[in-house]
Amino acid sequence: MNSPVTAVRVHAVEGERALERPDRLVTEEPMEIRVQAPGAEAVPLAVTMRTPGSDFELAVGFCLTEGVIDGPQDLASVAYCLSGQGPQEYNVVTVGVRRPVEVRARNFVANASCGLCGKTTLDDVAVRCDPVAAGPRVAGSILTALPDRLRARQAAFAATGGLHAAARFDSDGELLAIREDVGRHNALDKLIGHAALDGALPRRDEILLVSGRISFEIVQKAAIAGFPILCAVSAPSSLAVEAANRFEQTVVGFLRDGRFNVYSGADRIDMSA
Amino acid sequence: MNSPVTAVRVHAVEGERALERPDRLVTEEPMEIRVQAPGAEAVPLAVTMRTPGSDFELAVGFCLTEGVIDGPQDLASVAYCLSGQGPQEYNVVTVGVRRPVEVRARNFVANASCGLCGKTTLDDVAVRCDPVAAGPRVAGSILTALPDRLRARQAAFAATGGLHAAARFDSDGELLAIREDVGRHNALDKLIGHAALDGALPRRDEILLVSGRISFEIVQKAAIAGFPILCAVSAPSSLAVEAANRFEQTVVGFLRDGRFNVYSGADRIDMSA
Repeated sequence: MNSPVTAVRVHAVEGERALERPDRLVTEEPMEIRVQAPGAEAVPLAVTMRTPGSDFELAVGFCLTEGVIDGPQDLASVAYCLSGQGPQEYNVVTVGVRRPVEVRARNFVANASCGLCGKTTLDDVAVRCDPVAAGPRVAGSILTALPDRLRARQAAFAATGGLHAAARFDSDGELLAIREDVGRHNALDKLIGHAALDGALPRRDEILLVSGRISFEIVQKAAIAGFPILCAVSAPSSLAVEAANRFEQTVVGFLRDGRFNVYSGADRIDMSA
Repeated sequence: MNSPVTAVRVHAVEGERALERPDRLVTEEPMEIRVQAPGAEAVPLAVTMRTPGSDFELAVGFCLTEGVIDGPQDLASVAYCLSGQGPQEYNVVTVGVRRPVEVRARNFVANASCGLCGKTTLDDVAVRCDPVAAGPRVAGSILTALPDRLRARQAAFAATGGLHAAARFDSDGELLAIREDVGRHNALDKLIGHAALDGALPRRDEILLVSGRISFEIVQKAAIAGFPILCAVSAPSSLAVEAANRFEQTVVGFLRDGRFNVYSGADRIDMSA
């Protein structure tokens, strides 16, 4: 299997000094996810550019957040497609499911209507996820402690500076799990896949923290996994906040340096504590 | 048409102080790109979550970097799909092309072979783009001046903190064009679409700078547009550097605070000047 970190040599330049030295890059490799229903051939679902590691969790998380499976109960197996081809045989993962599934190209629009807006997109997603339940109420001081705990566990980021992270915390701010990837969505899919394989979804008492920004797709994946509180070190987008309001989620942005902004679901945050 | 910036109200929390105040978020809205060949119906190519603005450039750039068209000469028209439905009618763009095209789902793998690795992916892309020509030789001091010039022009980033940028510079470091988007790939597709509509591709004498990291897909898009020198404020991935070596491109990473690292094509950079 490939390492999440790749050794290279680099010319490091500062002013008039140029030094050739070893460096480490985050590994990026394609991974194909296939889905196999009972008595059927495995069919390709998607290819994602990912950082090797937690591949089965990524495949399961992707199938969950893309609506191919509804939960761990739909899973029959997860396996590499081994055929003796060396390292790249670890770049194809087949998810066996217990019931017939419809695999369709995401990114493609099935209907031919001319209307397309944030609302249409929200309607599509709302079909697949219920509003998030009440969830915990959390003190602001618990939130401001989370970024340091995330960073302290970002092993591959420390080595390469090139990775996104997603982590689950309990309502006391204890880190439960963290996953890293060159892709923001992959890091979250790995985390959700791990949570599904490790027990059950939804995770209605937990806090999700992502290292970067919050886009619509991050909110969507978080909603499907049931996270009531979604925090990010950087900014949310307009549609992310609109979606969070729709799914009754709390969105916290710019969580760093002891500060944060609450964009939706402010009742879950005790801002005076 | 929607604004690239959306006004919201936010609870800003710092220590025990919580202040409700107006804030601005980067707008994120879906845009569907359709392709229409002569005498045929328009068919959906993709839906991308993007920041409104430069929509036609985004559609053209996406068609170019995805290989749907080979250059501006293949373009017949670019238009919104107007139907009186209000704001969302600006979320569907149809690209008219002069010749029959094959539209296929990206993310989907056409062949059923079990091997998938960086090399396979590079081979696929190499079919569509020649190695980049010699290009300019640039002094290190020109590179270190670029990030400030990029940041000075990032209007929407300054307002929201939530945007990626891509910019073209000439070999003297003069900024030629900049585009911003909530998505890294979209910012580059807008820039490439603009370059194509504004003249011609490839851009063999120019420097490309992106605000974030360099993934494989960024290198691929840059190679198709012919950029010989590709710089980023943050880290490249392993496959990005591998691809750049294959396409004979120069990759410069961690370009900030007067420093940078050269990961490939070091002969184009005069490190002592």
